[in-house]
Amino acid sequence: MRYKITLSYDGTGFCGWQSQPNGESVQDSVEQAVYKLFGERSRVVGSGRTDAGVHALGQVAHFDCEKRLPLKNVTGGLNAYLPRAVRIVDAELADARFDARKSAKQKTYLYLMYAGAALPVLNDRVLFLPEMPNMQKLDAQAKKLIGTHDFATFMAAGGGAKTSVRTVYDAHFEQSGRFMRFYITANGFLYNMVRIIVAQLLKSERGEADIAELLEKRDRSFAKELAPACGLYLHDVVYGGGNE
Amino acid sequence: MRYKITLSYDGTGFCGWQSQPNGESVQDSVEQAVYKLFGERSRVVGSGRTDAGVHALGQVAHFDCEKRLPLKNVTGGLNAYLPRAVRIVDAELADARFDARKSAKQKTYLYLMYAGAALPVLNDRVLFLPEMPNMQKLDAQAKKLIGTHDFATFMAAGGGAKTSVRTVYDAHFEQSGRFMRFYITANGFLYNMVRIIVAQLLKSERGEADIAELLEKRDRSFAKELAPACGLYLHDVVYGGGNE
Repeated sequence: MRYKITLSYDGTGFCGWQSQPNGESVQDSVEQAVYKLFGERSRVVGSGRTDAGVHALGQVAHFDCEKRLPLKNVTGGLNAYLPRAVRIVDAELADARFDARKSAKQKTYLYLMYAGAALPVLNDRVLFLPEMPNMQKLDAQAKKLIGTHDFATFMAAGGGAKTSVRTVYDAHFEQSGRFMRFYITANGFLYNMVRIIVAQLLKSERGEADIAELLEKRDRSFAKELAPACGLYLHDVVYGGGNE
Repeated sequence: MRYKITLSYDGTGFCGWQSQPNGESVQDSVEQAVYKLFGERSRVVGSGRTDAGVHALGQVAHFDCEKRLPLKNVTGGLNAYLPRAVRIVDAELADARFDARKSAKQKTYLYLMYAGAALPVLNDRVLFLPEMPNMQKLDAQAKKLIGTHDFATFMAAGGGAKTSVRTVYDAHFEQSGRFMRFYITANGFLYNMVRIIVAQLLKSERGEADIAELLEKRDRSFAKELAPACGLYLHDVVYGGGNE
């Protein structure tokens, strides 16, 4: 049986999604929970990696097990074995052709910011900004990301992508009170792409950068800053019809 | 010099505001920071205790030190010595008659709830509810708290209050998306009062309790439940004119 799970996690204490020689990864936690629940060792394949400290609201993964358990028991059983920083929010049976990584059609990331004095309950969950930025300026710059572009400027080394061309379907800011949310939806993301973009958007708001110009450079040396991991959330992953 | 400080903290890792024989208190942390910054041992007096796991957005405290430091240095210096779960958001000089506990005229508490599937980044910060409650019902019940009443039903043993009569100036619910916020403002609060009230408000929404009837009982045995500490935030403390 191929199981498709949707999970939410607080990435603070993890070395990221992917198993690493040192540190506890979210993937390790889920694989251990699958082993305890099913009695079978299975590789848990995520839609993509998230870095250390990056959170997820709707990460998607798949794994194969011989045993067929009622889906309610998969959710409840895995949650019973998982640390509380990781929660399974949904479990489905998927077609054998479904692959959480390869079948992903689009992903949305959220970058969460808070303008104002330090608020310790938000530590490790937002990027704190000293002042409220100009939302119109930010949103206008964000809109320049939309479309099919070579995002080489916004790609860190080490991601192993074959091409740096991606299609951004949507990019916009929302504000509620002192919280600012940047949403970006694309058919795929390059290594550190959202964090590099956010750093440049904040510079652009201060008149120190322009997203359209940066896109044309196709060169990371023009966009060296990296926004902190703690503000980044993998929001959701969309697949094609029929779970394929 | 008497210093008045406003502070925000994540109460998760603390045994509460008040120094305890075992466990680390917020008060201990601040007293240690004061000692490191001023080189003087001083008692830090809070507006009131918060229990283990209860947070603060605007707790107020005072302390006396011989040394006069610029207020900016008090804020920055104390923050440099405090754990990141505690932040000084403001520092002022206060009149010698100002007492953070005795001079408090009113306080507002916030109780934060989230309706929906588990969201680990909100662990220890909200009360999770499986479903969105009826906000009209909740708000109508909350309104019954407003006025001068004997709140004995909503008082846990051990608080040492002389009277259980308090005046509630405001009590209301707000909703934004899946978050629900209960605000309650009074001239003072009894031990565990807000957490007992929240538990009964949630029962009243299900038709299992009525706030007006509970007030008339003046007996805690009719309201035994206690909402979890993690949803509770000391929002702010208001003092009279001239910092007295």
